[in-house]
Parts: sequence; C-alpha cells; structure tokens
Amino acid sequence: MKDIIYLDHAAATPVSGKVLDAMQPYFSERFFNPSSPYLPAVEVRRAYEAAKGEIAAAIGAKGSDLVMTAGATESINLAFTSVRGPATVSLVSAIEHPAVLAAACAAGKLETIKVNQHGVIDLGYLQTKLTPQTGLVSVALVNNELGSIQPISDAAAIIKAERLRRLGAGEKTPIYLHCDASQGFGLLDINVARLGVDMLTLNAAKIYGPKQVGLLWIRPGVKLNPVVAGGGQEMGLRSGTENVAGAVGFAAAVRDAKKHMKSEVKRLAELKSLLKDRLGQIEGIEFLGSDKKQLVSFLPVTVPGIDAERLIFALESDGVLIATGAACAANKGTKSHVLDAIGLSDEQAMGSLRITLGRLNDEAGIKRAADLIKAAINKERQRLSGL
Amino acid sequence: MKDIIYLDHAAATPVSGKVLDAMQPYFSERFFNPSSPYLPAVEVRRAYEAAKGEIAAAIGAKGSDLVMTAGATESINLAFTSVRGPATVSLVSAIEHPAVLAAACAAGKLETIKVNQHGVIDLGYLQTKLTPQTGLVSVALVNNELGSIQPISDAAAIIKAERLRRLGAGEKTPIYLHCDASQGFGLLDINVARLGVDMLTLNAAKIYGPKQVGLLWIRPGVKLNPVVAGGGQEMGLRSGTENVAGAVGFAAAVRDAKKHMKSEVKRLAELKSLLKDRLGQIEGIEFLGSDKKQLVSFLPVTVPGIDAERLIFALESDGVLIATGAACAANKGTKSHVLDAIGLSDEQAMGSLRITLGRLNDEAGIKRAADLIKAAINKERQRLSGL
Repeated sequence: MKDIIYLDHAAATPVSGKVLDAMQPYFSERFFNPSSPYLPAVEVRRAYEAAKGEIAAAIGAKGSDLVMTAGATESINLAFTSVRGPATVSLVSAIEHPAVLAAACAAGKLETIKVNQHGVIDLGYLQTKLTPQTGLVSVALVNNELGSIQPISDAAAIIKAERLRRLGAGEKTPIYLHCDASQGFGLLDINVARLGVDMLTLNAAKIYGPKQVGLLWIRPGVKLNPVVAGGGQEMGLRSGTENVAGAVGFAAAVRDAKKHMKSEVKRLAELKSLLKDRLGQIEGIEFLGSDKKQLVSFLPVTVPGIDAERLIFALESDGVLIATGAACAANKGTKSHVLDAIGLSDEQAMGSLRITLGRLNDEAGIKRAADLIKAAINKERQRLSGL
Repeated sequence: MKDIIYLDHAAATPVSGKVLDAMQPYFSERFFNPSSPYLPAVEVRRAYEAAKGEIAAAIGAKGSDLVMTAGATESINLAFTSVRGPATVSLVSAIEHPAVLAAACAAGKLETIKVNQHGVIDLGYLQTKLTPQTGLVSVALVNNELGSIQPISDAAAIIKAERLRRLGAGEKTPIYLHCDASQGFGLLDINVARLGVDMLTLNAAKIYGPKQVGLLWIRPGVKLNPVVAGGGQEMGLRSGTENVAGAVGFAAAVRDAKKHMKSEVKRLAELKSLLKDRLGQIEGIEFLGSDKKQLVSFLPVTVPGIDAERLIFALESDGVLIATGAACAANKGTKSHVLDAIGLSDEQAMGSLRITLGRLNDEAGIKRAADLIKAAINKERQRLSGL
C-alpha cells in the first residue's frame, strides 16, 4: 500500500493480518465439512458455532439466532422475505443502499420514508406512513454515503406502538423493523435489544474481515422464507456447506474491532477534525450530513461547480483514492438517489466526494491528502476559468 | 494431517497451497471494491473477469456467461428460478443431491426420473415423463453418493427433440437442461457444448479451491430470475460485492486440476483398484454403483449386517475418516434416498460406506486403510456374534 492514501474505507477494507491468521487453518488442515460425522469435522462445527456465538455476543445476541450469509446484500434479501406476497408493504428510508431498495422492490410494494437535509429520517413521517399493510420497516443504522446515524430506537418505539395497536384491533399482520448496520459496526456500540430491532444485518467486509461474509440476526419468533433452499443449514433459511473460515474470520474481526474501538474512534475523530479544518479552507466547500449525528469515519463534502469524477481521476494519479458516491452506483453515471433525497442541486451532487477514513490512515497521510485535494481543486478551477 | 487417512474427498477438500497463494493478495493489498472507479479497483475488476474467463475456458465457455455464487447450492437455486410459477414442472433424477431436490420443491412442481440399480438414469423413462409443462430437467453429472456418471449428452438429445416438437407445435414453454457438475469437475473433461446442457453448476470447494465459491454457467438466451437482488452485479442475477479472492482462488484450482488431471486420474485409478482388491477379500462386501461408469475417485460399498455408523466411529479412532452417506444427510439418521432409489434393502443401506479418494491419499495410506477397515469389520462381527 506504498504511496497510496486510501480514503474509501466505506467501500472496502483490507482483511487484517489477525483475521487472515484466524482463517488460515480452516482453509488447510481444518478443512472438513462441518456436517460430516467424524470428530475432526465435529470440531470444525464447534469452531463455527463458537465463532457465531462470539459475533452475536458483540451485539447482545445469541449465535443460534444468526443466519450467516454471503455478505450484506444476501442478508438484506433474507430480511425482506418477511414481506413476500401481495398483502404487505415495506417502508424504507429514501436514502437506503441500492441492495435494500432492490430487495424491497423484489419482495413487494415499496414506500419510502423522507429524510431531512442531513440525511436523517423523519420520524413523524414514518408514523404517518404506517398502515395496517406495512409488514417491514428497514432503515440503515448509518447511511453509506453521508454517514448519518439514524434514530433506530425511536423508530422502534413507533413500530412497537403500531404493534400494540394491531394487537388491540385484532389485526394479524406482523410488523418488523430491520436495520442494516453494515456501516457503523465496529465504531458504534450496537445492541439489538437497546436498538429495539427485529432483524439486523452485519457485514464482515466493512470491518477488516473477509468479503462475502455477512449475517442476519433474527429475533426469535420472526417468520422468514429461505433465500437458498437445500440441505437445510442455518435454520433452513440459507442452505449450503457453511463458510467456516469466513465465520471464524468475521469473529476475529469483531474481536479486534471491539478491543480497539475506543482508541480507534478517538484517533479517527482527530484525523477527521484535522481533515475538516484543512478542507474547510477551500472556497465554496460544503460538508454534508449531520454535524452531530455522523459516523466518525465519514466526511462527505461537495464543491459545487467542480466535476467530482474528473477530480477523483486527478487525485488517483496522486495516489489519493476517493469515491464519488456509493461504490456500487459510482461507475454507472447516475445521480446518487441519496444526494437527491437530501435536496442537493445537480451542481452540488456533481461536485460531491465521499471521504471515509479508517485504519489505513494516519496524520501524515491526511495532511498530504488535504494538500493534494486542495491543489487538484485549484487546478480544476484554473482549467474551468480557461487560465 | 498427520496420522489421518482421509477417505471423504467428496464431502470436502482442503484448499491447496497454490490456491491460497493466488487468493492472498486479494485479501490484503488488492482488497479494493471492484465497483470503485479508481485504477487499483479497476485492476481488481480485471483480475476478477480474467479469473472468470479462465474458469469458463476450462468448460469451453465464456466468462461473461458465468454467474459466480456462494457455492453450488446457490447456483442450483438460481438454475431453478427458470421454473418459478405454477405452469412449469421440473424433472430431476431420483438420486439428486438434497440441494437440487429442495430447490426443485421450492420452485414448483417436482417429478423424479427413475435410475437403474447402478444409479444411472433411465433415458426411456425420462422420454416418457416429458410433458408440455416440463420446464427444467436437472441431472448431476456424477452422483455424489455412488459416483455414477450420467449420460448427460443423451439426455440433452432427448430434450433437444422435445424442444423441436414444441417449436413445431407452436408451444411457447421453454425447456432447459441443468447439470450439477460439482462432483466430477477436475477429474472429467467437461465441455458445455459437448454435454449439450443449458446450465451447469460448478463448485470450487470440491476441487481444492475455497468453500462458498461456486458458479452457474448459463447458455445465452436462458431466462432466469435473481436469487439475490441489489446492486445488479453478475448480470443482475446475483447482487453483492464480488468475491474476487474466491474467483481468483477458483481459477487457480481449475488451472491446477487441469494441469494434473491425466496423471491424477491414473494415480487414483491405481489406488482405487488396490483398495477394491483388498476390500474385496471381506466376506459379503458389495461394491455399489456402475463398474464402468463410475468416477475414478468413488468406491461406495456395503457390508450388509454391519452398522456403518458404528463402523465409521470405530475407524475414526484409528484415524480413518469415511462418510456413511452424503455428508449433509449423514448426521440426521435418515436412510439415504439415493440408496433407496437403487433398490438397496434396509440392511444394505445401513451397512454402506462412501469411500472417496483424492489428493490426500497415497499407496501406503490406502493399504493401511484397507487393513483397518477389514479389522474393524471383523471386530464388529465378533461383537455381533457375541464372542
């Protein structure tokens, strides 16, 4: 990673050395199929269950309530099987990840919850949008473009009240709250009971664990349909030989994140403050998202009048790697639905950069990145003014 | 792997050193999200596409026609989305893997194709079972319990004739042939055109590649529905950040298997012959499956009157690892539907062992395993006769 300043930790994180070391034996000498009957395979199954237990404990849950999936997208799809069929509607925030929007569309009728200009959901609006047909409400803990932290436990209280109303009215349609906590896990203290959610998505790939490893925590009693049918693994909801190395790696990533969370949050806060101060010197720059309720690793900005896409290619040649919008949509040339939902003009959206910090950053790199971003914007402005 | 003689290669294989070496950079320095716009991420995407291209070339196909999945089960589920809805029926062999049976059930109406006593499908029966409602025929290339190699290209000819009949009759229901080649790939020369299939499932985990990495090859023109909705990766059929390390590892496993296929088939044939000779000395032993049309790594046997489950636990303490039936069903205490379908009595089924050879075996180990199996059966017979 020499010469590169990586400012796109929300898109992907490298697998840490500790995680790789933990996974290694399950690729080689402990390779057995956990469903095989002999002791070495039974030991592999035990390691798998122990890994699930450890991950679950980090969110105040039990391993037996986790369904391991191949990443967050599959986990989200599994959550939306709760609203399959014509009778129920799902209600998701207007700034959800494309995976949530697509899964909601595939599952049935979809309605969106308005957000304010900081990208925080409007709880009053959520309240008014609930109908007897609403089967699932899904809001990410932290928005993946703005870093805005959502008031999940407040949303949970609203849904709890609706559940009680239905109970009193003799209505049988269940209503669940799903939260995609892919962004935020590892830097926020997450507890499923305190959040009050019914389902929670986590993603190892965002916390220096392996890619294609995610999970859905499911509150006991929530009824879902399988996404993958087969041998009946993972409570019958997701069949296929278990990804033992992946779960063990996820657990190692969780352990590591938990151990260093306090110091890492402090360190990132200092780096973010430093970068914000320096970028604040750029004329016309605007910082996006909520000032108070923003994940410490996020610094989304816009420089209206600048073409962010040109900018990131210029910065890339200096070794600074930044995204324009969500990585998934970035190379499709469409305006981000998130920036649209918070009311940005086309010019603001065109000029937006998503800077996300993480373990690969240090003070020297951040100072250098700030200088290079300033210089690139100056150069671009000179080009635009025909100098 | 000291002191262990592993005779269960059909259940799981260790990830080879070469495969791990190939994957390593994509865990660490080349960790980027392949959808990110900057060059290091674009290079990761190129490596991903190159890996797909290399895997595809091994079956005479193009990388752009592969959908990478988290293992064979998901690939099979994707194939069965072609018959979603009430109008179409799927027709699968009576001895398919539980993943195929469950996916077929989940997709719609399921009918089975009879097999003979060697576990080979009855082509005449397949012919008679085809109706205008048949949407998908699915037959594994090699049965995962018996090792019997199926006459896929003959089945393809029957389906081609049915397709022509429908064309002539103006019938619009498509009919596809899917083949799960998870078992057999790496030891058989597989070419999608020669087989005449419309979809083919492969699994890295069975050829010394990573677990949770599989794919579905799809003939252009075949219409499927997404199994996982989201960002639109893999032609929109399977969303989620791509498993780059997994695909690169799969390609390395394919390369290695291809390079050594001829010599490995010869080596395994010799080991199998040696083991068969030695086990043939056991009174009452029966060799299962077809003598001629059996994958070289398979040696399924039964010793009627012996409780195979007791036997594998006794052998385990000697360091010999064998399965009783398919690993997925083995620890559920039910009679194998495969052994039932080939007409075995309960006594024969109870006494059956699935021995599958592979890279972890050598002549000394096989000789020792034969002696230990013979001794364990003798001991069990002494116990049963009350001596």
